[in-house]
Amino acid sequence: MIEDTIQIRTRYAEVDQMGYVYHANHVMYCHQARTELMRNYGIQDSVLENNNILLAVVDFQVNFRSPARYDEELTIVTTLKKMAAATIHFEYEITNDNNELICSATSKVAFVDRDSRRPVRAPRFLREAFHTRV
Amino acid sequence: MIEDTIQIRTRYAEVDQMGYVYHANHVMYCHQARTELMRNYGIQDSVLENNNILLAVVDFQVNFRSPARYDEELTIVTTLKKMAAATIHFEYEITNDNNELICSATSKVAFVDRDSRRPVRAPRFLREAFHTRV
Amino acid sequence: MIEDTIQIRTRYAEVDQMGYVYHANHVMYCHQARTELMRNYGIQDSVLENNNILLAVVDFQVNFRSPARYDEELTIVTTLKKMAAATIHFEYEITNDNNELICSATSKVAFVDRDSRRPVRAPRFLREAFHTRV
Amino acid sequence: MIEDTIQIRTRYAEVDQMGYVYHANHVMYCHQARTELMRNYGIQDSVLENNNILLAVVDFQVNFRSPARYDEELTIVTTLKKMAAATIHFEYEITNDNNELICSATSKVAFVDRDSRRPVRAPRFLREAFHTRV
Repeated sequence: MIEDTIQIRTRYAEVDQMGYVYHANHVMYCHQARTELMRNYGIQDSVLENNNILLAVVDFQVNFRSPARYDEELTIVTTLKKMAAATIHFEYEITNDNNELICSATSKVAFVDRDSRRPVRAPRFLREAFHTRV
Repeated sequence: MIEDTIQIRTRYAEVDQMGYVYHANHVMYCHQARTELMRNYGIQDSVLENNNILLAVVDFQVNFRSPARYDEELTIVTTLKKMAAATIHFEYEITNDNNELICSATSKVAFVDRDSRRPVRAPRFLREAFHTRV
Repeated sequence: MIEDTIQIRTRYAEVDQMGYVYHANHVMYCHQARTELMRNYGIQDSVLENNNILLAVVDFQVNFRSPARYDEELTIVTTLKKMAAATIHFEYEITNDNNELICSATSKVAFVDRDSRRPVRAPRFLREAFHTRV
Repeated sequence: MIEDTIQIRTRYAEVDQMGYVYHANHVMYCHQARTELMRNYGIQDSVLENNNILLAVVDFQVNFRSPARYDEELTIVTTLKKMAAATIHFEYEITNDNNELICSATSKVAFVDRDSRRPVRAPRFLREAFHTRV
């Protein structure tokens, strides 16, 4: 299973007047978590860029169970769920300091050619990067 | 049908290095659209606050079809889909300058008591506000 | 005097847990205000882009007198203070619903060639656009 | 000298279509840097909160020398410059991966009573926290 775990400390700018991390910011956290998973497999974004590949989020679904608060250290576990022909699917689980699951999410991300801005097949180096560890 | 339409001009700060509105910002746009729908029915957020009610997003699902770009005037049509016992469900459709549907989304929002921070039933004034126009 | 006034309604996402618009968001508001001033003089950002010009903020100074709150309609008056050889200087005054001055700021913005990413002289069309109204 | 150094990796959401970290985000980075300096002296924000103290930025000045890019690891050195009667002054220097100074800034932050929302004198525990290491 291809999986990665990161910690993110919530920032003051990210918290709303309820004292909760503003809900859209969890989407950004998941993005950061996916970036770090890929980095761990040798695919930092500069590698994609050098291969003329952009990643575009197609679908995002998120369920909020409990709020995150300011200055909490959140843990995000990201799992690669599926490599399809032209998309890659991730799952995210965010837990707080007390090890409570506060948020879960999934994203479907498409490969896009940087010049044409059209969808393309998953690049070989990316398939290989993930296969070598599966 | 309870529905509202707003325009949002995308800001420079909201666009990423692909030249596309960063995906998490659509979540914020939808929030703004829902706020305006409620305002149109007399339920500006200060009314909720005066009634000790917070709104907490429970679920958010979004499908991205095409990117939005900087300085575009987007149109967001928000529809109230359902008033459940303790939640309210909205649907969003975002179209661009060319009248293309670029993004659709749904959210499920819970009513929360401001002091206890526990879920509560949909407040009567809110049910009434929407019923008067249904 | 080259001046423009815009209204911005503060968004939920922009307010922090003190119940105040997060201070860095005023910087974004001023940016939006400057964009609208330039648009009013026929220089929307697409014109700059078509002329291969980027704008890069060099200096920004801001004084916060009173907080802005959620859902307030702020007024931003932007004044072009100076066109120097390679920079343009703006001044901003933000007032709230009660017509109180809550924030004042200045920015110095440089013209940058899009390809070389080097500073360039203020483009002629921009000098002309502003002169025609001075 | 009271000083602290942190690293911040720039996020995709923070970069604009020039490929540069959006200028207002440096303000947020400096805030995070000041928070970490204070944490290192035992004054995490929860301590302030427990003492009914809010911090409100009064002045912020920033000079941008070079852009930061996506996925760079920036270094922010924060220095406490002055403790005045009711304000605290910080200075920030942001350098990039190549050890170039890309941004410098100063902030003046006021102490505010949480209930009255009025300025108050610098709290004793804060003066002491910093004095013990001066």
